[in-house]
Amino acid sequence: MSEVLTCAVAPRSIAVIGASENPNKIGGRPILYMKRHGFRGAIYPVNPNRTEIQGLRSYPSLAALPQVPELVLVIVSGDAAVAAVDECAARGVRIAVVLASGFGETGEQGRAVQRAMTERARAAGMRIAGPNTQGLANFGTGAIANFSTLFIEIEPKDGPVAVVSQSGGMSQVIYGLMRGRGIGVRHVHATGNEADVTVADMAWTVAHDPEVKLVLLYLESVADPVLLARTADYANSRDIPIVAVKAARSASGQKAASSHTGALANEDRVVDAFFRHHGIWRARDPRAMGLAAEAYLKGWRPEGRRLVVVSNSGASCVMAADLSEELGLPLAGLAPQTQAAVAARLPGFATTTNPIDITAALLQNSGLFGDVLPLLAKDPGADLFFINIPVAGAGYDVERFARDAAAFASAAGKPVAIAATQASIADAFRAAGLVTFADEEEALGAMAQVASHAALMRKQRAQWPEDPPATLPPGKDRFLNEAQSLALLADHGLPVVPHCVCQSAAQAKAALRDLGTPVAVKACSTDLPHKSEHGLVALGVSEASLLETIFERQKLKLEALGARFEGILVARMRTGRREMMVGARLDPVFGPVVIVGDGGKYVETLKDLALLMPPFDAAEVRESLRGLRIAPILAGTRGEPALDVEALAAVAVGVGRLIRAARGRIASMDLNPVIIGAAGEGAAIVDALVERGDA
Amino acid sequence: MSEVLTCAVAPRSIAVIGASENPNKIGGRPILYMKRHGFRGAIYPVNPNRTEIQGLRSYPSLAALPQVPELVLVIVSGDAAVAAVDECAARGVRIAVVLASGFGETGEQGRAVQRAMTERARAAGMRIAGPNTQGLANFGTGAIANFSTLFIEIEPKDGPVAVVSQSGGMSQVIYGLMRGRGIGVRHVHATGNEADVTVADMAWTVAHDPEVKLVLLYLESVADPVLLARTADYANSRDIPIVAVKAARSASGQKAASSHTGALANEDRVVDAFFRHHGIWRARDPRAMGLAAEAYLKGWRPEGRRLVVVSNSGASCVMAADLSEELGLPLAGLAPQTQAAVAARLPGFATTTNPIDITAALLQNSGLFGDVLPLLAKDPGADLFFINIPVAGAGYDVERFARDAAAFASAAGKPVAIAATQASIADAFRAAGLVTFADEEEALGAMAQVASHAALMRKQRAQWPEDPPATLPPGKDRFLNEAQSLALLADHGLPVVPHCVCQSAAQAKAALRDLGTPVAVKACSTDLPHKSEHGLVALGVSEASLLETIFERQKLKLEALGARFEGILVARMRTGRREMMVGARLDPVFGPVVIVGDGGKYVETLKDLALLMPPFDAAEVRESLRGLRIAPILAGTRGEPALDVEALAAVAVGVGRLIRAARGRIASMDLNPVIIGAAGEGAAIVDALVERGDA
Repeated sequence: MSEVLTCAVAPRSIAVIGASENPNKIGGRPILYMKRHGFRGAIYPVNPNRTEIQGLRSYPSLAALPQVPELVLVIVSGDAAVAAVDECAARGVRIAVVLASGFGETGEQGRAVQRAMTERARAAGMRIAGPNTQGLANFGTGAIANFSTLFIEIEPKDGPVAVVSQSGGMSQVIYGLMRGRGIGVRHVHATGNEADVTVADMAWTVAHDPEVKLVLLYLESVADPVLLARTADYANSRDIPIVAVKAARSASGQKAASSHTGALANEDRVVDAFFRHHGIWRARDPRAMGLAAEAYLKGWRPEGRRLVVVSNSGASCVMAADLSEELGLPLAGLAPQTQAAVAARLPGFATTTNPIDITAALLQNSGLFGDVLPLLAKDPGADLFFINIPVAGAGYDVERFARDAAAFASAAGKPVAIAATQASIADAFRAAGLVTFADEEEALGAMAQVASHAALMRKQRAQWPEDPPATLPPGKDRFLNEAQSLALLADHGLPVVPHCVCQSAAQAKAALRDLGTPVAVKACSTDLPHKSEHGLVALGVSEASLLETIFERQKLKLEALGARFEGILVARMRTGRREMMVGARLDPVFGPVVIVGDGGKYVETLKDLALLMPPFDAAEVRESLRGLRIAPILAGTRGEPALDVEALAAVAVGVGRLIRAARGRIASMDLNPVIIGAAGEGAAIVDALVERGDA
Repeated sequence: MSEVLTCAVAPRSIAVIGASENPNKIGGRPILYMKRHGFRGAIYPVNPNRTEIQGLRSYPSLAALPQVPELVLVIVSGDAAVAAVDECAARGVRIAVVLASGFGETGEQGRAVQRAMTERARAAGMRIAGPNTQGLANFGTGAIANFSTLFIEIEPKDGPVAVVSQSGGMSQVIYGLMRGRGIGVRHVHATGNEADVTVADMAWTVAHDPEVKLVLLYLESVADPVLLARTADYANSRDIPIVAVKAARSASGQKAASSHTGALANEDRVVDAFFRHHGIWRARDPRAMGLAAEAYLKGWRPEGRRLVVVSNSGASCVMAADLSEELGLPLAGLAPQTQAAVAARLPGFATTTNPIDITAALLQNSGLFGDVLPLLAKDPGADLFFINIPVAGAGYDVERFARDAAAFASAAGKPVAIAATQASIADAFRAAGLVTFADEEEALGAMAQVASHAALMRKQRAQWPEDPPATLPPGKDRFLNEAQSLALLADHGLPVVPHCVCQSAAQAKAALRDLGTPVAVKACSTDLPHKSEHGLVALGVSEASLLETIFERQKLKLEALGARFEGILVARMRTGRREMMVGARLDPVFGPVVIVGDGGKYVETLKDLALLMPPFDAAEVRESLRGLRIAPILAGTRGEPALDVEALAAVAVGVGRLIRAARGRIASMDLNPVIIGAAGEGAAIVDALVERGDA
């Protein structure tokens, strides 16, 4: 399924079924565009009512063409569209791009028609893009099987950006944002209902185009996570960043997406984890893509996040300082000699620590800027530079500022972002080749994004050893009982609480002696995965006689409930400092995910949880735990020691390995609580429930 | 202190000390501007080296002027500036606008000079704006005592907006954003170091200008909260929204602000509460001001938040649905007859529920838009309308869309926001008089803002009854002991736990009988406000003999610690469902604040707290509790009942009344825990500590 779709982006011949003479009609646009943008293959308009269309010979039918075209654009709609697709498949067309709407997005009937049409095509070896799509466009080859209005409104220019979008409208919005910044766009592909070809297919294809340097995606549903992950890995190997907007984040959005492209819902925090795991940056919206694009294309891949701010406005310094804290771009501490040198050049009332406020004195002396910048270029404390000129104009030598800043950027060899609210000033900086934003929020937001994204991309996912397949005890029941669950975890090196599964009261009393008091006593039965709801858990038992009573009572209770007796579990009561939880499950789309976070009875109410996608290492768990609300408690607060995050991370890593190794045989695992002590005291899995998967 | 500063915004005469012939110098700009913008009073350039400046007669000194000017602009710097201010004060000038930097923002010495200069001026009855300011500008009167470069770069136009800013640079940024949207700006005042005149003074003054319809503030520190509050109340009575950017939110920002304008730090969450309390909207940055300004000026004050979305792009519908959920603008349920009517007009594959996706069919039929909109205008479920046209151009009749939308907006009589990414489309809608944004995020963000702000402004703060002054028990110690603290709270109607302060063991045993078991036993001593640190708290005591032992042990312990014995408090142990906390303190700038939230030992670690500014009512407490992370627990979760939020709110209201009534005699109160039960079961203050204030 991961062929590079050359037939989609560089076909040798294209037919348009439903071609129109009018270039503002859907059937007319693609022909106009291909002629205008130099498509070098054959173009075959198909329209039984005309002999010529836009100066090209028009054919009455597909059968009448002098050759079988590689790509066919199906403009006709309804039953005619289905018939055209079938005919294309029968004649050996490589790919049909189906613009017609009224398929999967309209409900079950439309889905059935769409599915059947796609199955027939695939059986014949033909791919389908769409239906309900605006089509595909490659300005490198001129293959514009696309009716986008924006290719008239905003002059196309071939360049390093590829846009792949489920939505035609959003592909245009992103195209427009790029072109508005003067950035060239080579690919603009919309996949619509994704009956066959998905965003992942087209992303995989454009990532193989040697001219592409940045891939921008819009998705409402991740239909093929395996191929998208492979694409991300491949793009990463070529240092191509992928930025994705994944809409339908909310219930309302998912409902709207379902009527838009028939998209299926994804769980949003799993989407987050998936993108992070594969080094894809998730942008909030197309605007955020527009803001960061130039930074990516300039090759910004900063190694650090320490920021230096220079402005002629004190307020801009203040706002940049606020943002630096918010965005985790700490203000760099400048070397003493840098500070002294800066102080020597600026008036006494200017601020010479970072942020550096040149003040309105710049109005009286346009040289201040060029005096100060070179002093900063080589400061070892800086990773990123931000220069903000919110105010200038008459009386200021703006051209000189731009020249000075450009010289500085090339001397520093590190990212330099400019902000200028006034278009006239911004234009001067842009003309000098600098990456320029409207204000501090845009500039620092983009810098934080590329810094975080570069860190994700650098995280070369080592070739994780494939663990040998994990096997579960034989059985058909949905859940393992607790004893089986704990045994499975222990077998995979996870720290379960010391315990003994007892078949008799005598055995239980012996366990009490061996384990030490107090103990917890729990009845095991595959039939009753949720023991405590049935009063089958007793805690804090220290006396042998009481233990015996409880043993018998629990056994009778099982009988009364008609549940199999599989032993009574006696476990050492474990005290610790906090109850955490670790869970794992198979997401229906993305596969195994691991959840780690605060435990206790409100785990689902407070949801103070991090979600990770295996494989991952302990460092990744530690990092995600730092985002929890209870992070200060884990770090030690109110005189309490730091907790054993290391041990918790090891449990999460082990759970991630186990669910992967189970190859679908585990549907979910719930370890709650995992009791952790102070750092060095370890973790203990006190309760566990493993659910079998279908595999 | 709350005079309207007519002398600042409409002086009859202005002198410029340090006037310059060069209109691009600081001393030349104001003269250029006043001449250009029709100042009708007298302009007196003062410069001993010239007899004429920019065509006006120049004077060698203040003494040489034919009259004492009302406003003097002091351009000279350093000692000369101080001397000029002193001379102005001596001669009876009403206000000196001091542009010179190098005062309070540079450190202690500068602060001392600034303070002394200001005191001399005030003693003589003269006000000072600045120092370290860009000055004041009123395009209504032409009194432009201001050197802003932007008044050259962007043509001024008198209008309904007033900008008041500590920072000159930021005043220009906001001015530029307004003018860039074609909005007229009357006032642009910068207050700099605020030695005397603050943002509040200028806000108060511009709020009295009958032409002003919107006030925009930039602050780094709230220097005069009393006047700012009065201004907000007055502006509210005139239906003038005030929107404020308060920078220096973070520690880094506060440090930068201190070197910028010498601004003192405010606690940021208190700033939030203050603005909310007084109906001032806190904007994130100037950009957010720019985005919402037209909506305010159109008079949007929506009563509800139910949103209808219409677009020709399905993806825009999806993204708007996501945002509607995020911003709390629920998608309106359209009436069945509305939906049926919409369905009858659109193609079968279009979505006729809200959001309404007209689809790319609009390209083939530009009338669809005008067909559908009128059907929505009178739907009773809608409060707000959002129309998004991310894509159009050749083949679309954009002018017709704009006409149809304008007709719809006037028929609906409710806010209608347009989004159009392409400038050509946006321009058409703007020309038709519609409020137009670049994308869904901007449009819905602005709609959510005006809806929330309107709700704050509507909350007419009733004339809260002034409670009679609360008195504390006599004493000089910083803290009341627990018995005194509980008594004070009980006297003010607050539900304290049943208890008895016992002087003897016998009395304690009697209390045990009366209160019922178990009890808590705590030693009271003004000398030891934090009892538990000293082992002076025993919990769960049920037996008289044990109580007697504890009584004697605690008494001896007090003696051993050299602390006064003020009785042993015996209190009924109270069980409930959750430990909450209520606190109050006097903020050094803003006065009384009340904190309510989750209690327990991690109260300061997890900070799941809401901050309110008294006076407030129970409804306001309930609303702020809905923002807590534990809100689902308060509402009832996992089969647990809802908790008694009503009783907790009553405690918070009572605490707010008490700290106000104490008129500074209470510095802080800490009620932790306040145990609450299920709804209807009430709240009990179990532990309380009251700290005396300086009043």
